[in-house]
Amino acid sequence: MTSDLVAAARAGDRGALAKLLSTVERGGREAHEVGRATYPLAGDGYTIGLTGAPGAGKSTLTSAVVAAVRARGERIAVLAIDPSSPYTGGAILGDRVRMGEHALDEGVFIRSMATRGHLGGLALATPEAVRVLDVAGFPWVLIETVGVGQVEVEVAGAADTTVVVVNPGWGDRVQANKAGLMEIADVFVINKADRPGADTTRRDLESMLDLTGSGDDGWRPPVVSAVSTTGQGAGELWDAVLAHRAHLETSGTLALRREQRVRDELALIVEKRLRARVDRMLGEAGRRQLEDDVVAGRLDPWSAADRVLEEPKN
Amino acid sequence: MTSDLVAAARAGDRGALAKLLSTVERGGREAHEVGRATYPLAGDGYTIGLTGAPGAGKSTLTSAVVAAVRARGERIAVLAIDPSSPYTGGAILGDRVRMGEHALDEGVFIRSMATRGHLGGLALATPEAVRVLDVAGFPWVLIETVGVGQVEVEVAGAADTTVVVVNPGWGDRVQANKAGLMEIADVFVINKADRPGADTTRRDLESMLDLTGSGDDGWRPPVVSAVSTTGQGAGELWDAVLAHRAHLETSGTLALRREQRVRDELALIVEKRLRARVDRMLGEAGRRQLEDDVVAGRLDPWSAADRVLEEPKN
Repeated sequence: MTSDLVAAARAGDRGALAKLLSTVERGGREAHEVGRATYPLAGDGYTIGLTGAPGAGKSTLTSAVVAAVRARGERIAVLAIDPSSPYTGGAILGDRVRMGEHALDEGVFIRSMATRGHLGGLALATPEAVRVLDVAGFPWVLIETVGVGQVEVEVAGAADTTVVVVNPGWGDRVQANKAGLMEIADVFVINKADRPGADTTRRDLESMLDLTGSGDDGWRPPVVSAVSTTGQGAGELWDAVLAHRAHLETSGTLALRREQRVRDELALIVEKRLRARVDRMLGEAGRRQLEDDVVAGRLDPWSAADRVLEEPKN
Repeated sequence: MTSDLVAAARAGDRGALAKLLSTVERGGREAHEVGRATYPLAGDGYTIGLTGAPGAGKSTLTSAVVAAVRARGERIAVLAIDPSSPYTGGAILGDRVRMGEHALDEGVFIRSMATRGHLGGLALATPEAVRVLDVAGFPWVLIETVGVGQVEVEVAGAADTTVVVVNPGWGDRVQANKAGLMEIADVFVINKADRPGADTTRRDLESMLDLTGSGDDGWRPPVVSAVSTTGQGAGELWDAVLAHRAHLETSGTLALRREQRVRDELALIVEKRLRARVDRMLGEAGRRQLEDDVVAGRLDPWSAADRVLEEPKN
């Protein structure tokens, strides 16, 4: 079943690919099967995270980048993660009118993922979705997220290169630092660079970069100007991504990061299973009773936790 | 050891109290011991969360409230939570010059807590710190936090009454809604109410409250005006807190909220222990090999998780 779907997706069946992604997004036993089936097949897929405040023009920029990548003959997939949207997968596709130009291009695959309030779920689903896309022949996956919250931090962990989108007038030092964007950015894009203030924003960003210096691995994030509505700057942005990839590969950082990512993924899977096991062991009734004892003050929460986590005695 | 410290803190030894709070902040096994020792002793301690944007005058307002509470002969402790500060406990106390007037008052205890990037850690440490203060004879604990971020949401969960501090000119409807303050506020304070625009801010807040109506439990947040630098309004603010407490007690909401809080605390403790268990499991030599196999692509993470979680065979 799963292996049939994987084979179909590899042969270009987009319906099969969509089904696999839905399964991954739902999580649980079937998602694990997809994981087992795709892991050995995964190639050298590369993940770009693209993030920025609401209104920064991330969707149009994504569309422009996709066009630039396609112009170079490469296949690319987009995962648009919307932490607030109740819609998943196909449902939201109709809304992404700005992506319409790529709708008939079989070298492009666009997919929305909702988090459904399931933060940890996304952390598990994202790397697996990237692997599915890789296996289905999309060696580039762009993950678009909004802002810098918990979701973005989780998703940033899945990206090889993180692109941070800012706008003219946004460059205020304090704000940028506060937003935590300086720490996660591998590439900055000043989008809407035809608006007043773009030069100031660039100067501000550059002087912030002067202060923070290059990261541990000697990379200084370049600042690219773009006007995503016209496509201007999308090629330069892609060149910056390629330069960062080359840097990560040469310095050995890419291998190290990916290794850590796999270790984290394993730990997450183990944790999720342990939790499920604890729930099974104690059962709804047993847990409720312990909770009631704590609430009534008959038991302190630490001793209750001891009992919740007790291994079954044979 | 722990019980000696607890006894000393109950007898008024501030050094012992400070040590207990440091232990709680550090987390881990010793913190659990403090939890076990204090849980059965905890009384009817009441927690007030005080939050607002940077610069709203929270520290001076806190100091004014402390003075008002002391004037009524009650003992009160302050936990100042600074998500960005690398300092903890005593270290930052010297900086809190505005609290200087209470430095020699043994009916007041002021403590800064840093989060050290440990979000979940704060969620666990805060209710336990409140319990320690309660046991040490501070039936009122005011928790001061900045803004409305993840930290504030976590901390708000620990508060019985949440006070939101705004300033004149701040009352813009969209902003207030966006900040999520409307949902968490039980009491609004317009601080710096001697500045222009205070009336407009009050009108804006009141009309927002007209729109959102009272909460599920029938409480409409009152709007108090204050000038914290002179102490004006601090007594009225405290009266509003007392009114809210009375409302929570009469409606039964206080008991329900505290019950839910204890349940949440138990769930957090279980989760933290589970995570520690995963770390231990993965840390063992045999499992290290499994990780390496996953990293090398010889094994997928799901099959590796199966083996990590295998029951030991007798």
